[in-house]
Amino acid sequence: MKIAVLGTGEVGRRLASRFVQVGHAVVLGSRTADNAEAVAWAAANAAANGTFADAAAFGEVVVNATGGLVTLDVLRAAGAANLDGKVLIDVSNALDFSRGFPPKVATFDGRGVAEEIQREFPGARVVKTLNTMNNKVMVAPELVPGDHTVFLSGDDAEAKAVTAGLLGDFGWRDEQILDLGGLETARATEQFVVLWIHVGGAVGDVPFNIAVHRGTPEG
Amino acid sequence: MKIAVLGTGEVGRRLASRFVQVGHAVVLGSRTADNAEAVAWAAANAAANGTFADAAAFGEVVVNATGGLVTLDVLRAAGAANLDGKVLIDVSNALDFSRGFPPKVATFDGRGVAEEIQREFPGARVVKTLNTMNNKVMVAPELVPGDHTVFLSGDDAEAKAVTAGLLGDFGWRDEQILDLGGLETARATEQFVVLWIHVGGAVGDVPFNIAVHRGTPEG
Repeated sequence: MKIAVLGTGEVGRRLASRFVQVGHAVVLGSRTADNAEAVAWAAANAAANGTFADAAAFGEVVVNATGGLVTLDVLRAAGAANLDGKVLIDVSNALDFSRGFPPKVATFDGRGVAEEIQREFPGARVVKTLNTMNNKVMVAPELVPGDHTVFLSGDDAEAKAVTAGLLGDFGWRDEQILDLGGLETARATEQFVVLWIHVGGAVGDVPFNIAVHRGTPEG
Repeated sequence: MKIAVLGTGEVGRRLASRFVQVGHAVVLGSRTADNAEAVAWAAANAAANGTFADAAAFGEVVVNATGGLVTLDVLRAAGAANLDGKVLIDVSNALDFSRGFPPKVATFDGRGVAEEIQREFPGARVVKTLNTMNNKVMVAPELVPGDHTVFLSGDDAEAKAVTAGLLGDFGWRDEQILDLGGLETARATEQFVVLWIHVGGAVGDVPFNIAVHRGTPEG
């Protein structure tokens, strides 16, 4: 598939590299086409880079890997016309460190980032996923043992199926993918991230993720 | 130990019954000493009931199993003098359904319930735990397979050790108990509860809990 990855930070580059590795065509998008990180990444990965609009115009799937606090601005730069009808995978978190640690999770009049994207870009088919873990685990679930979990939230069943397929390319097995329902459930995964930070502090410097363990129905 | 359980709802009765079962002396506290649920529970469990103040005066450990939206009022009724120096285990969540489903998690000027308890009752040794799961799983972790997780948050190491001991009485193994750090981390476990609700919706009517899976440190 043709995939746009918006955001040249660690998350964006990690996802973009992995998409290339599993055989997709990728354009990495940033504010300017001469972004040094993006140019270096494109050269090293036999892929391309460009502006947010260049990338979004190219992608059949657009992945938002920018920080949630700037995401709306980034998507405005990408352009609504370049998002219309496309699967938009949002992996962002809107962490506000302006009042120190632990950060607050920013909301938009109570809504999460993913919901706010959908509201402003109704033509995009927004799916939230992968925002509840470190970016190394996102693209290499085998770093963590067992049936640990990746969540999906979104209002478009076909867009969620496309997203699940891309997760499969990364190595996620079907039994690890938990569909939480509509995009409003993404707000809860965004709110989870502060707990994720504390869990990370408690477990130390190892790859980790949460899993949902299920018992037997009561008889 | 002598344990006060404040709150006669499903959570309070479940915890109180299990404390009795494993050999502790329990007083179940409610607003009035003649609360029908509490009187029936005491008769059925060869235990006692009384007002919130009666229970708190009795307990060496006080367990708050009231809804987080009313907890502060309940603890005022219990009386600061009856909480001073005691381990106060807070299992509450402050879920506000006034604007429908999913609920909002109420905060107190940004703080969680457990932090607010500690702020108003500085003599209590507050520990947050068990608020991230269904009450059946709280007292019977064997309902869910594997090393699923119960979190601990609190500022008093000895109070956390007492709490971990009581969790052990319920069947929680040491490797399942994850100490997140100070009481400010409890806020994150309280915020998690909306995700817990959505996960419950996705997995259906089975006992479940989250686990923290850990990989191998990078070499």
